[in-house]
Amino acid sequence: MTDTNPRPATFVSGRHFLQTPGPTNLPDRVLRAMDNNAINHRGPEFGRLGLAVIGKLRQVFRTAGIIGIFPSSGTGAWEAAMVNTLTTGDRILLTRTGQFAHLWEELAGRHGLEVQTLETDWRRGANPEEIGAALAADRDHLIKAVCVVHSETSTSCMTDVESVRAAIDRARHPALLMVDAISSLACADYRHDQWGVDVTIAGSQKGLMVPPGLAFTAISEKALAAAACNKTHRGYWDWAPLVTSNKTGYFPYTPAVNLFYALNAALDMLLEEGLDNVFARHDRYAEATRRAARAWGLELQCQDPRACAPGVTAIRTPEGHSADRLRTIILEKFNMSLGNGLGRIEDRVFRIGHMGDLGVLQLTGTLSGVEMGLRAAGIPHRSGGVQAAMDFLAGNA
Amino acid sequence: MTDTNPRPATFVSGRHFLQTPGPTNLPDRVLRAMDNNAINHRGPEFGRLGLAVIGKLRQVFRTAGIIGIFPSSGTGAWEAAMVNTLTTGDRILLTRTGQFAHLWEELAGRHGLEVQTLETDWRRGANPEEIGAALAADRDHLIKAVCVVHSETSTSCMTDVESVRAAIDRARHPALLMVDAISSLACADYRHDQWGVDVTIAGSQKGLMVPPGLAFTAISEKALAAAACNKTHRGYWDWAPLVTSNKTGYFPYTPAVNLFYALNAALDMLLEEGLDNVFARHDRYAEATRRAARAWGLELQCQDPRACAPGVTAIRTPEGHSADRLRTIILEKFNMSLGNGLGRIEDRVFRIGHMGDLGVLQLTGTLSGVEMGLRAAGIPHRSGGVQAAMDFLAGNA
Repeated sequence: MTDTNPRPATFVSGRHFLQTPGPTNLPDRVLRAMDNNAINHRGPEFGRLGLAVIGKLRQVFRTAGIIGIFPSSGTGAWEAAMVNTLTTGDRILLTRTGQFAHLWEELAGRHGLEVQTLETDWRRGANPEEIGAALAADRDHLIKAVCVVHSETSTSCMTDVESVRAAIDRARHPALLMVDAISSLACADYRHDQWGVDVTIAGSQKGLMVPPGLAFTAISEKALAAAACNKTHRGYWDWAPLVTSNKTGYFPYTPAVNLFYALNAALDMLLEEGLDNVFARHDRYAEATRRAARAWGLELQCQDPRACAPGVTAIRTPEGHSADRLRTIILEKFNMSLGNGLGRIEDRVFRIGHMGDLGVLQLTGTLSGVEMGLRAAGIPHRSGGVQAAMDFLAGNA
Repeated sequence: MTDTNPRPATFVSGRHFLQTPGPTNLPDRVLRAMDNNAINHRGPEFGRLGLAVIGKLRQVFRTAGIIGIFPSSGTGAWEAAMVNTLTTGDRILLTRTGQFAHLWEELAGRHGLEVQTLETDWRRGANPEEIGAALAADRDHLIKAVCVVHSETSTSCMTDVESVRAAIDRARHPALLMVDAISSLACADYRHDQWGVDVTIAGSQKGLMVPPGLAFTAISEKALAAAACNKTHRGYWDWAPLVTSNKTGYFPYTPAVNLFYALNAALDMLLEEGLDNVFARHDRYAEATRRAARAWGLELQCQDPRACAPGVTAIRTPEGHSADRLRTIILEKFNMSLGNGLGRIEDRVFRIGHMGDLGVLQLTGTLSGVEMGLRAAGIPHRSGGVQAAMDFLAGNA
């Protein structure tokens, strides 16, 4: 940022702790890769870069199929999925697991889709049994797509995508399976092809450790075929040119060149660390964070122990204690950003992001900021959360 | 870029000359601003950054009105203009001045709009008289928008937007005036409010000296009012939340944080140099480039001397001589990227970009690359182009 950007009056020493669940911390290697002059997006160097990036993304999505890259936020990839495969009046089945599922639902409504909603208490993932039952009841196959959020960033609850697929198959229902993997990709095991996902949506600024501004989609043959006969108006989001892009590395619009540099470097880092190691690291940090919360005596937003997200942990403040005030105190006193509660749990939870590029000591530093913040905010809790996390991390090092 | 990005086998010394008309060269100051960790897009620092950037963009667009910033390419801002103000079956009047006007027309067709096209030979700007006549003939006011490209990047021809506005006013026609200023903003004088433009569209990667990935829109009260009663399905591109964003500096989706850093720094640079100085510099480089072309005995694509663009010059190769082969030779021998001919002038023109961050010696270096390239490619020409440019630049220093 430049000098003219207004700054707080008082100087704060040390690195800001960016512990939101996206944008996540950017590795220096990614930043340095981005810190290069632009190149001609129609020249041979860009074509090579485009192909390299698509190939590496395929490894992360675990797909041999088509990869879409849009200059947009993750919301754009949602919109693309809808306007390519669905049309006004089409019904989708969506489990409202939290704020991001709710926003997806809202976007569907804006595009004239009819949403059949399965409610939850925002404290667990989508229920595959319920999805299966809804599909079985849909004898006329009015439901065109089943939409679930793999890691619901607002609640830190995971949905078991493989089981959702199995439920669809058991119901012998032809609906497309669409998955928002925005805050799970490169944090949790994900298998687009093996799980039979038709459309996976992701963004650059979470586990992929790239600045915000790129959205990704993995697209099955079935979804591509649905798009080919769908007449919904679309231009910017049209998937058709992606098939060519996947062969050439060029795009029909000006691609976000410097973000491609960043993405290429970040994908190299992920593949060098090894995806299984990346997932194990996330699991370990998430477990340490949950142990800290338990030691503090605070409740996790996620009530299903098998559904806790590896990349983010939403923690409830005791009734009558503002989570937003806690976050403000932590920002001002300890120079750390945490995620806020969204939608119906606004001010009721704070979210610790532990996804992307993060070392053990950054995590313990983060937890110590929360523990000291709880004390400063006068929120009833027991101390010992950092200790519990350290005990776990040291024992499992 | 990283080591794993495939590179040419032979080492090339020195800086690549990026002389395409976008993406343009990125100033180091802009790159360094971008080379910082992400911040929380919902935190107070981002709100300040968002407001700062919107305020500076208003100075560049010369508007007191609403500014939209989308994580997208310029095409996205076109799509946004359509889905916010127009609906299926609406007619727009568009002058096909070149490939980008043609793509706009194509996008309109995809969104179910009826396009009344005014043809040109792709060698001049839009004709305000013709536009006025078409509007006068439209007694039922079926035309809902007049669309022109301020600087048609494919032909390097400018359209006189002020005269188009005057023609609309003379016809007492209520159509909205929409202007693509993607390759003119921050290169040529532009006055959104004074010229009565309803929607101006721009992108980050041209005169604004920012990497590709952001699109901008300036929106008049009249266009906002049209959007408010328009029922066309829209989500990602909806203008409604922009009114709030313009007050708070926050966005309803995850903004492209690092590109905002770059934009903030680039806007500072433009405002420090002074927009009038920026425009004069572009005019001078464009004139030097045209003098070089004239000395080489090559024809400009733009046949109207009052309509030559300040940011890019499209030059025709003699009949039977491939412009693409010339560009390939220049890339391989002299490590310089030029713009290619697009659409119906593919392989017939090459385009020298001289927009954005560019010093005099970069320009003469560029012209020398073209002159030596013409010789290497065996394209009939006279030498002396660089000399003519130098004579002009030295005399007008």
